[in-house]
Amino acid sequence: MKLLEDRIRKDGTVKEGNVLKVDCFLNHQMDIALFDEMAKEWKRLFEGHRIDKILTIEASGIGIACSVAREFGVPLVFAKKAQSINLDGDMLKTEIQSFTHKRVYNVIVAKKFISEGEHVLVIDDFMANGCAAIGLIELVEGANAVVEGIGIAIEKGFQDGGKILRERGFKVESLAIVESMDAKTGEITFR
Amino acid sequence: MKLLEDRIRKDGTVKEGNVLKVDCFLNHQMDIALFDEMAKEWKRLFEGHRIDKILTIEASGIGIACSVAREFGVPLVFAKKAQSINLDGDMLKTEIQSFTHKRVYNVIVAKKFISEGEHVLVIDDFMANGCAAIGLIELVEGANAVVEGIGIAIEKGFQDGGKILRERGFKVESLAIVESMDAKTGEITFR
Repeated sequence: MKLLEDRIRKDGTVKEGNVLKVDCFLNHQMDIALFDEMAKEWKRLFEGHRIDKILTIEASGIGIACSVAREFGVPLVFAKKAQSINLDGDMLKTEIQSFTHKRVYNVIVAKKFISEGEHVLVIDDFMANGCAAIGLIELVEGANAVVEGIGIAIEKGFQDGGKILRERGFKVESLAIVESMDAKTGEITFR
Repeated sequence: MKLLEDRIRKDGTVKEGNVLKVDCFLNHQMDIALFDEMAKEWKRLFEGHRIDKILTIEASGIGIACSVAREFGVPLVFAKKAQSINLDGDMLKTEIQSFTHKRVYNVIVAKKFISEGEHVLVIDDFMANGCAAIGLIELVEGANAVVEGIGIAIEKGFQDGGKILRERGFKVESLAIVESMDAKTGEITFR
């Protein structure tokens, strides 16, 4: 998606350790008008697909997923990273390793929010090795629901997540796929 | 706001320990159409006020704040609960005690996202003792910016947060103020 690629080139910065900082419009400060355009693009890419629910994971996926839920006219559910005393009842659970935070999270969704047979669109801001998306897929499949597709804002194409998930047969729609990036020159090449 | 009060009565449940569960539309599954109506109400309540930015805290405030940012046509910034390797540079910092999770969080916002003199509307899903809102106010004031107001979806009127902040002179606009609630009968009374 050219709008997103242009924005990443303009406002993103490349840091050592394969870190792409897009905190001024995507995952700390948020540009909602951009999110709405991204949501329209996913609506186009999933035209004709049955989507009953949007699933994302806290925290930085939520803003993008809100625009997507509005565009599709369905509810949004976000998976939580820790047990809360407000979350009783039956839970779908999995573990997700975070590339960014270098730790493992217990991730939960209340069972009542993903029903058997529902078609779910998984949304997240980033995909690198695919751990978050794979965890969200496990939650959906644990509810005997259907992963209709995976929408990622920025995929790091030089890491394995996208390849693994496409080989498993999932429809993965990343709006920007970074082929390579260079912390020294700041150059970003898109697929 | 009658729409929100009706929804709390219909879909909220009262649990022991002054817990009001609204996870099926507000803070786990999210009803974006409701959020958009809430955003319109805050737009009305802050008519004539200068609002340059929306500030909330991860995770459950983000969805509501996205609708508010769209309605006001300004960027949204969400405060983060832990240091991330992606967050370098100068940070505004404070500590917030969580009523729900019974722990203290370090909360940070990158300095570059709240500028001196900016007028900020603080948005959150819940207010009980006001710790989260007070922490967000500290972040704004630490940037020499102005807290133009505080918009809360659900205020627990039987706890001190709202009283403390209104006495300090802040314009606090809570869309539903719970005066009392009873875990045995499930009854909820609004102010």
